[in-house]
Amino acid sequence: MDFYEVIRTRRSIRSYKPDPIPEDVLTRVLEAARIAPSGSNRQPWKFIVVKNEELKRKLAVACYGQMFIGEAPIVIVACGYNIHWNRGEYMGDLSMLVDVSIAFTHLILAARAEGLGTCWIGSFSNEKVKEILGIPKDVNVVAITPLGYPRDEDFGEPGPRKPLSEIVSIDKF
Amino acid sequence: MDFYEVIRTRRSIRSYKPDPIPEDVLTRVLEAARIAPSGSNRQPWKFIVVKNEELKRKLAVACYGQMFIGEAPIVIVACGYNIHWNRGEYMGDLSMLVDVSIAFTHLILAARAEGLGTCWIGSFSNEKVKEILGIPKDVNVVAITPLGYPRDEDFGEPGPRKPLSEIVSIDKF
Repeated sequence: MDFYEVIRTRRSIRSYKPDPIPEDVLTRVLEAARIAPSGSNRQPWKFIVVKNEELKRKLAVACYGQMFIGEAPIVIVACGYNIHWNRGEYMGDLSMLVDVSIAFTHLILAARAEGLGTCWIGSFSNEKVKEILGIPKDVNVVAITPLGYPRDEDFGEPGPRKPLSEIVSIDKF
Repeated sequence: MDFYEVIRTRRSIRSYKPDPIPEDVLTRVLEAARIAPSGSNRQPWKFIVVKNEELKRKLAVACYGQMFIGEAPIVIVACGYNIHWNRGEYMGDLSMLVDVSIAFTHLILAARAEGLGTCWIGSFSNEKVKEILGIPKDVNVVAITPLGYPRDEDFGEPGPRKPLSEIVSIDKF
């Protein structure tokens, strides 16, 4: 799929068919995250592919009851290793948020290119998700998405966005 | 350009031609960032398009002397508004790093689709860049990239990446 078509037609999908995702499709989606750039090529990420029904249900609860998450055949949990990059300054250990977000954006867009739906979930209990999936202390959850074929053909209109004039300036803030 | 070709052929480009970027090309690249998703659709971002030669040189110095940055006809500085999203928990005010990184990834990939080079710069003095560009107190610099046509036709091989077996697990960390 053309790059611009991918970014223009991506939507947050909140209803999924139970249809399984072929292994080769899943591999391409994960591969898109794998090849993403990161600061100093540290790749401070790990992706947990959750297929177990009970775990998916628990994750949906840990996402403050967003139960549609468990409806998808797969839930992907993106984790980041806490790193301290001296020059990151104010970001401290959380500069890994940048790296993991780059890789997860690759994954979300690749899913769209494959006809799969996703919904970037930022609202979750980090501690509860860590407990459910056995994530170690020095690792944090950055993002979660359900992954599956959208139930509806019509993805709807995109949400409103600020105009370029409001988010772009020349030479000064 | 095909989506997978974009992500497979993107490289960090560190040498640029002085050739200007046509306005319509620059607009498409910025538009790719504009339509990016963000938590609760907050869009906590602003992109400063730096064209002034003196400012570009100062920015390169503020990026700890990575002088190639100033060689490109344009330098883009991505800023994020500090936001506190209660459910982001450990991220605190820095959950904006996730949103700005999504939008900047769109921008970086769109640049590749347009034949432009970029280099995601994470190593910079936040305070010095803020001073140079008049960025307010409650806003921080998330990422910087030069934007221009690559000097070399051959982008070289991608950096090594961890294998999928190391970065993916099923059902548990």
